[in-house]
Amino acid sequence: MSLVEPVIDPRPTTGAGAGGQDAVAIRVAAKLWSTDIASKDTMGMEIVSCAAGRAVLRMPVRELHLNGHRICHGGFIFTLADSTFAFACNSYNKSAVASGCSIEFLRPAHEGDVLTCEGVEQTLQGRHGIYDMRVSNQRGEVVAMFRGKSAQIPGAIV
Amino acid sequence: MSLVEPVIDPRPTTGAGAGGQDAVAIRVAAKLWSTDIASKDTMGMEIVSCAAGRAVLRMPVRELHLNGHRICHGGFIFTLADSTFAFACNSYNKSAVASGCSIEFLRPAHEGDVLTCEGVEQTLQGRHGIYDMRVSNQRGEVVAMFRGKSAQIPGAIV
Amino acid sequence: MSLVEPVIDPRPTTGAGAGGQDAVAIRVAAKLWSTDIASKDTMGMEIVSCAAGRAVLRMPVRELHLNGHRICHGGFIFTLADSTFAFACNSYNKSAVASGCSIEFLRPAHEGDVLTCEGVEQTLQGRHGIYDMRVSNQRGEVVAMFRGKSAQIPGAIV
Amino acid sequence: MSLVEPVIDPRPTTGAGAGGQDAVAIRVAAKLWSTDIASKDTMGMEIVSCAAGRAVLRMPVRELHLNGHRICHGGFIFTLADSTFAFACNSYNKSAVASGCSIEFLRPAHEGDVLTCEGVEQTLQGRHGIYDMRVSNQRGEVVAMFRGKSAQIPGAIV
Repeated sequence: MSLVEPVIDPRPTTGAGAGGQDAVAIRVAAKLWSTDIASKDTMGMEIVSCAAGRAVLRMPVRELHLNGHRICHGGFIFTLADSTFAFACNSYNKSAVASGCSIEFLRPAHEGDVLTCEGVEQTLQGRHGIYDMRVSNQRGEVVAMFRGKSAQIPGAIV
Repeated sequence: MSLVEPVIDPRPTTGAGAGGQDAVAIRVAAKLWSTDIASKDTMGMEIVSCAAGRAVLRMPVRELHLNGHRICHGGFIFTLADSTFAFACNSYNKSAVASGCSIEFLRPAHEGDVLTCEGVEQTLQGRHGIYDMRVSNQRGEVVAMFRGKSAQIPGAIV
Repeated sequence: MSLVEPVIDPRPTTGAGAGGQDAVAIRVAAKLWSTDIASKDTMGMEIVSCAAGRAVLRMPVRELHLNGHRICHGGFIFTLADSTFAFACNSYNKSAVASGCSIEFLRPAHEGDVLTCEGVEQTLQGRHGIYDMRVSNQRGEVVAMFRGKSAQIPGAIV
Repeated sequence: MSLVEPVIDPRPTTGAGAGGQDAVAIRVAAKLWSTDIASKDTMGMEIVSCAAGRAVLRMPVRELHLNGHRICHGGFIFTLADSTFAFACNSYNKSAVASGCSIEFLRPAHEGDVLTCEGVEQTLQGRHGIYDMRVSNQRGEVVAMFRGKSAQIPGAIV
């Protein structure tokens, strides 16, 4: 499994914050990632970047991801988005969990495709946030749109 | 990976139909299952039962399912529900795909837990169906509720 | 605007409870209903029945409900379901609010149709509940399926 | 009921298109609006602007919108978003209907508040689109986030 060193997302963060907050986001991501067997080892994801309130992850589609129709299992497309969501909503070093998520599947992904998921915070009010994830393939076509609701819980990551 | 022979669900099917339809559902499930690397090999699921418009799948939570919080990755709980949904909505031997899904996470699942997902058809009008999945642990506690929207596409499974 | 006196739902309540709890549900519904201008006066709904964890409301589709396509505005179908949801999730006399809802529209409703929404509790764990609403027309055809997530907040209704 | 003349949204449209397409969007909106009793007369909405793939609507919260808690009925917040969604997804002069929608409620709205809903297209692939709506109050606080899925059907608006 490849492990890409998380780097600071060069794009401006929306609403969230910047500067020192992004350094925190990197440290949080490194900590969560170090023990995330599911995303790293089982699924073969890589972190492309993370910042306050946002994250980008990537996952090449391999044979292990294929369902009975020989396309990438929708659950694994969801899993890629859910992992990206986790890095984005935990990025303030306040532990947060997903309370609910929805996904729309727009086109299938095939073996050999490389899926990239970009996640951004839409709103964070008190303990509750909403984050949108967009999963695209290597041709820039949108494969799925995901929306996650987070709830911060007591505790910090690092 | 264990493979449980799909058996007829003894409970009455809701709205869907029964008798000969259930035999078709079994044949469809066996065909889809035979090549479903994602559900069977990667995730370690088993089919408990299937019938017209419904299905039950099971998945023991193992180390490979754990995320950075050392609990079962929410994406894999979704994946269990999504696989169950696939068996239920394809059960009429008309190919169907998920157009969108939503999930609410109610409690975490830990290593050693055995998750069971029961899925039932709520409505099927023309090509479009709605199916509800309930994921419970070995103590009968509800772990997640999932709702999937399906769209039938041309083609048959068997 | 007609006001139907809420009556006890004769069907067994699922999971929720029965007997004395249903009497509480009736008292709560009467209180909420008495000041619900939106549901009663603006929309013209009626309460058909309510019980612990469930409720049934009805709304005849009139000219005031029609959108630019001359069919019932989807927002008003949602509103009927959301009101039904409110009666179901407040039925324990613990104030509860909707945190999020989703709806699938299955067929249009026309002027003169009479829509009935039946709502049932699917799960209530701690402060958080999930409730499903089914909106049907006078021919028993399903018009929409709605799922609501509730969160109890401090306070009682009666 | 006030009727605001729809005007061209000065902001660049995302992905959608511009120029002549916006003129079409205005004509479509004017046509739909002229007979939309629900949005205009029953709810008291106004169109602020519309363009290809996007729209902005406004609704002052009045007594007629209040539920039994004396706050704006969540169904009417949904209705504002659903109307905005309709103008955005019909803006290409290809008839489109909502197949499903989800909403997250973030804070209540009170009598006297003025709600503004801004809607943008996130993706439109073939006949299916995803549109996001953000409902804010006069202080710029987010009241609700709505996501709608549209399906184009045969026929044009103008």
